[in-house]
Amino acid sequence: MSSGEDDLIARYFKPLATDPGALGLTDDAAVLAASHSDLVVTTDAVVEGVHFFKHDPPETIAKKALRVNLSDLAAKGAVPAGFVLTLALRGADENWLAPFARGLGDDATAFRCPLLGGDTVSTSGPLMISITAFGRVPPDGMVRRSRAEPGDRVVVSGTIGDAALGLAVLAGRLAVGDLAIREALIGRYRVPEPRVGLAEAVRTYARSAMDVSDGLAGDLAKLCTASGVSAVIDATSVPLSPAAQGLIAQGKASFEAAVSGGDDYEILCTVPEDRFEAFAQVAHSVGVAVTSIGAVVAGKTAPRWLDGEGREIVLGQLAYSHF
Amino acid sequence: MSSGEDDLIARYFKPLATDPGALGLTDDAAVLAASHSDLVVTTDAVVEGVHFFKHDPPETIAKKALRVNLSDLAAKGAVPAGFVLTLALRGADENWLAPFARGLGDDATAFRCPLLGGDTVSTSGPLMISITAFGRVPPDGMVRRSRAEPGDRVVVSGTIGDAALGLAVLAGRLAVGDLAIREALIGRYRVPEPRVGLAEAVRTYARSAMDVSDGLAGDLAKLCTASGVSAVIDATSVPLSPAAQGLIAQGKASFEAAVSGGDDYEILCTVPEDRFEAFAQVAHSVGVAVTSIGAVVAGKTAPRWLDGEGREIVLGQLAYSHF
Repeated sequence: MSSGEDDLIARYFKPLATDPGALGLTDDAAVLAASHSDLVVTTDAVVEGVHFFKHDPPETIAKKALRVNLSDLAAKGAVPAGFVLTLALRGADENWLAPFARGLGDDATAFRCPLLGGDTVSTSGPLMISITAFGRVPPDGMVRRSRAEPGDRVVVSGTIGDAALGLAVLAGRLAVGDLAIREALIGRYRVPEPRVGLAEAVRTYARSAMDVSDGLAGDLAKLCTASGVSAVIDATSVPLSPAAQGLIAQGKASFEAAVSGGDDYEILCTVPEDRFEAFAQVAHSVGVAVTSIGAVVAGKTAPRWLDGEGREIVLGQLAYSHF
Repeated sequence: MSSGEDDLIARYFKPLATDPGALGLTDDAAVLAASHSDLVVTTDAVVEGVHFFKHDPPETIAKKALRVNLSDLAAKGAVPAGFVLTLALRGADENWLAPFARGLGDDATAFRCPLLGGDTVSTSGPLMISITAFGRVPPDGMVRRSRAEPGDRVVVSGTIGDAALGLAVLAGRLAVGDLAIREALIGRYRVPEPRVGLAEAVRTYARSAMDVSDGLAGDLAKLCTASGVSAVIDATSVPLSPAAQGLIAQGKASFEAAVSGGDDYEILCTVPEDRFEAFAQVAHSVGVAVTSIGAVVAGKTAPRWLDGEGREIVLGQLAYSHF
């Protein structure tokens, strides 16, 4: 009675459906049991040729598809609860599906975010993976984009720009001789590090937050717009990896590209001045560096970026747009 | 600061985000507030060239994309709570997006299922719409596929096979002279009628249920497999519309095609014998006919289909499979 589609689901995806609410992927729907938590829902899709390359390893494609959603949950202060998956495939190629499911399963386990359900459809076009992920926060606990206040510090996790440089390497626009640096940058593009461990600290200390997916400069502008505020950023404090610093120093990459490229999947948040030290300490204790890069100010103009001498840097295109 | 993507979302989709948990689509995630209900989650995607035709009206594409998910919720006994949308587009064509958003909005309102969030991505391939929908049931109230018991009646809502005939008309495989019949069949294919009004009755009276999306025969087999039972079906009781009856009588369509074609989006459920009358009455009171077509029996063999003389009908391909 079973079709190719059912076989595919049973073989590759049922092992990932470890939550009882997934009903072993044998039903039409999954259940998220009633709880005292609010449920945070986020959805992000990745498309071949846009968010990943056709010949990227299937494991990393799977990980990126899940991690971009985990990054949203972390920025909202939510603890992962599970996800559903829509997979649009040109065919059922086992040599692709097996490592894809393995990568997805490894991350579902590592981040405690089990597969709850999904749909598999055929397409003649580019491969596409759409994930809707769920996380839990205490009632009214979701951290919004819209609550930044003048005086807050503007804070980012990790380092900015590495993924954009990795993409430039993969696209042949940037030559990097050092193999280790090359691989590290590509790794940041292919497999982002969602700051899941930082979720509780964000909820405790941040007034507003979002994840940096379309470029720091553009995403900061969005956060400011949503909050009805502006910001002043000290460009010299933006955390850059040694690799990015080196490439900028050599003139092979620009600071502008680092802060307007996408795919960082770091957390951008605003933290009241008197809570910043505690936030940084808790972040450090879970292994994540957070850096203050400026301050929220009153006003509705675009955030201003200042160089080491306090002169304004004019940034061009701020963010990636699909259209 | 805003990109084309943000403009598109603000213009076409923000008006649909009427639930406070959607945060006006200005945040990275939506919130489903803590409640005493279990949350039922279902996800279904539709792809151009597979689930709809390129030149289908955008309104009907939108409605079908949402309704196939509402149909799953209804079959699980759940009341709609909202949905998230992933839209993969080749470009931002306003002449397509405006009616698409209007159709989606009309149904979101009609079925009280507001847009909570989404993602819009570009693709070089076929248009694809992936929806994850949420519904609420009392704790442990979701109706499963897996709880059919021998002695239950096998029951379906509405009529079976019309959508498959509508697809055959659109694909040029079936000529139907009568314009009203032709339009009615195409309408069933393009805009299914999710049995949202039947959800509570299904939860009250049915032991097991699923929606019929891949063909009645195949879906019944899946329900039986999930429940560890078999079934005996009286083929003459399968509810067919006058249009389908006429086409079968004329030899232009087959009974087999009607029960193995997809896209019915009716509810298939099993109901204990002593509850069937009450179920049928409640269904009638909400304007939906339900028909008993056979009985669940013990055993693990495939369901048997009997003709008017009690002879077994052998069905070929039972269901649509993507692979």
